[in-house]
Amino acid sequence: MDRIMLISADCHAGPPPATYREYMPSSLHGAYDAWLAGAEAQRRRRMGLFDDEFMQGFEAAGAEGLSGAWDPGRRDAELEADGTVAEVVFPDSIVAGGVPFGAGIGMNSREIDPQLTLAGARAHNRWLKDLCEASPGRRGGIAPIPIDDIDVAVEEIAGVRRSIPHAGVLLPAGTGSLPLYHDPRYEPIWATCEALELPVHIHTGSGPPDYGDFPFAPILYVCEAPWFAHRPLTFAIWSGIFERHPRLRWIMTEQGAGWIPGLLRQWDGLFDRPMFRHLRGALSLRPSEYWARQCLVGASMLSPEECALRHRIGVETIMWGSDYPHPEGTWPHTRERLHETFDGVPEGEARAMLGGNAARVYGFDPGTLAPAVERVGPLPAEL
Amino acid sequence: MDRIMLISADCHAGPPPATYREYMPSSLHGAYDAWLAGAEAQRRRRMGLFDDEFMQGFEAAGAEGLSGAWDPGRRDAELEADGTVAEVVFPDSIVAGGVPFGAGIGMNSREIDPQLTLAGARAHNRWLKDLCEASPGRRGGIAPIPIDDIDVAVEEIAGVRRSIPHAGVLLPAGTGSLPLYHDPRYEPIWATCEALELPVHIHTGSGPPDYGDFPFAPILYVCEAPWFAHRPLTFAIWSGIFERHPRLRWIMTEQGAGWIPGLLRQWDGLFDRPMFRHLRGALSLRPSEYWARQCLVGASMLSPEECALRHRIGVETIMWGSDYPHPEGTWPHTRERLHETFDGVPEGEARAMLGGNAARVYGFDPGTLAPAVERVGPLPAEL
Repeated sequence: MDRIMLISADCHAGPPPATYREYMPSSLHGAYDAWLAGAEAQRRRRMGLFDDEFMQGFEAAGAEGLSGAWDPGRRDAELEADGTVAEVVFPDSIVAGGVPFGAGIGMNSREIDPQLTLAGARAHNRWLKDLCEASPGRRGGIAPIPIDDIDVAVEEIAGVRRSIPHAGVLLPAGTGSLPLYHDPRYEPIWATCEALELPVHIHTGSGPPDYGDFPFAPILYVCEAPWFAHRPLTFAIWSGIFERHPRLRWIMTEQGAGWIPGLLRQWDGLFDRPMFRHLRGALSLRPSEYWARQCLVGASMLSPEECALRHRIGVETIMWGSDYPHPEGTWPHTRERLHETFDGVPEGEARAMLGGNAARVYGFDPGTLAPAVERVGPLPAEL
Repeated sequence: MDRIMLISADCHAGPPPATYREYMPSSLHGAYDAWLAGAEAQRRRRMGLFDDEFMQGFEAAGAEGLSGAWDPGRRDAELEADGTVAEVVFPDSIVAGGVPFGAGIGMNSREIDPQLTLAGARAHNRWLKDLCEASPGRRGGIAPIPIDDIDVAVEEIAGVRRSIPHAGVLLPAGTGSLPLYHDPRYEPIWATCEALELPVHIHTGSGPPDYGDFPFAPILYVCEAPWFAHRPLTFAIWSGIFERHPRLRWIMTEQGAGWIPGLLRQWDGLFDRPMFRHLRGALSLRPSEYWARQCLVGASMLSPEECALRHRIGVETIMWGSDYPHPEGTWPHTRERLHETFDGVPEGEARAMLGGNAARVYGFDPGTLAPAVERVGPLPAEL
């Protein structure tokens, strides 16, 4: 029986500060060191999310620590041991500081000089290119793009297309003090991503406010972050981004999947209500039709309950992810977790969600991946 | 067969500006006139929510216009014609301006002098007392309370207890530039509402940002307002408000009900995860247990889909509402809408959601209401 091509549509990577320093102009080293001191306090606070005892166990599980977060050889070995043959990589592993100047998944969480945000994203994206190229055909990079200056963002996006394989664009979930995504200022970004066939990604990370220094504050972040990550879809659909850019792909990553059918149903209901008919403007499709045509969910740690909703979400729109190497993800227990979620799911549907859809969206070649699949992929009977 | 005691847990009322003027000190009339000019433009923009043709039909349906929004005699007649024998009243009907100085359901949507907000709420609450007293035993008032100054808020709440029958307290869904509801500054409000047995209400209204002057902007408000209205529950549960105040009642009004089971399940899941165990702090119950013990939903226009979830929400926690006289509500077609939602629901459950729960929470006496019920209440067979 053919093993399953398991592709993670949600992994994270980032090197230690010394490596990031090599990927930025030396003129920025001073600013980076100053920023790091504060960011490390912030990181420790975010790590306060996780119970100490739990984290000790998690870190002990990787005998060499978490160097798979940046070391391609170790990374490939750990992914294979977990049954995974390809991945797309978002920023921010759990090592010190994250992307320089906060330009990763938490972009716009704090006020910072936009020039530094840009420099941080550039350093990460240069490093990301090298990480992806170290494992040809098996790793794609989702590149963070700052949105302070739209002309610059468009240039950066073009650079991503030229340099990073199996690429996508990561826009911040929260726009901070900048306009929300219905604003026409973002139009060149949508046009460029559509023309260059680069999917836009919104990943949980920014948006929530500072909850202050309460012991329970991290759980407020956990509760609210997905909610803020859903927001851009509202603006994209109702302001007509998908109407104007019918070939743009839009991917919502690590923010659950169970919310999708209810929200689409509610929006379709608003679309259909006579009292709101004049607000539909130039939308030729209903919200659920735009979803089906252009959107996908990077369904990290897909739960059995979410999987049960797959026909209402759309099997073709779901891409499984392990969230490697994050502690809330399925690694290093992916096989057990897959069994919990996919037991009883028809094999064709499981194959689509576990790798087929991601191969199509990110351009991974099943032929290239076949030897690895035969070596490490889960057997259908294991699901 | 006994007719059903139908009580609306979500109605709205407010008089025209000339009447509000009578309920505020004359020293404020100048400021009120100045504010009204801007507010009327804002109201017209909000009315841009509704299709012109739809609104013409809606307004024509009430032969005397919408004077039931403030005239108790007409109001009682319209409610009875719709099958309803009692109601609780939130601010903001659809007449000019709403509560003076924006102190109604949209409180904190715009920056304004806190003294004016307070004056507006006081004018409304004085008027609300008279409106409620005009129909003894059949109308309760949910009084808006500004939260800029906590000592003042506590005094206002005590005044509500003394003056308004079947009362509750309305806090703004959005806190604007003030701290979110997990902040200890609000502690005296929770303690006072618990001690005085005044349920706290969060009603959809404030929270969303200004979406700008796009034709589709009102639909962004419609999509996001419920989402902002849900937020305070997050802060209440996780910061331990219900742990510290076990007799406090908390009511979430006109923000849907379908989101409740999924959210509680998700929060229970977070509560149970080992990696987050240190964040649970002093919570002795799981989130769903606090909900069952202390929270209710003012389930305006309860849909068939939401009603199907009633056992997961908790039948005892659901209170139907008509949203009278708002155009998105069930009035004047409540009987048809009740049939759509409650057809096939066991009669005892329907009676609880349609009136029994509200009578218990707001202290309406079924004996007092009985003659009206026998005159106008829907028959069980009509459901």
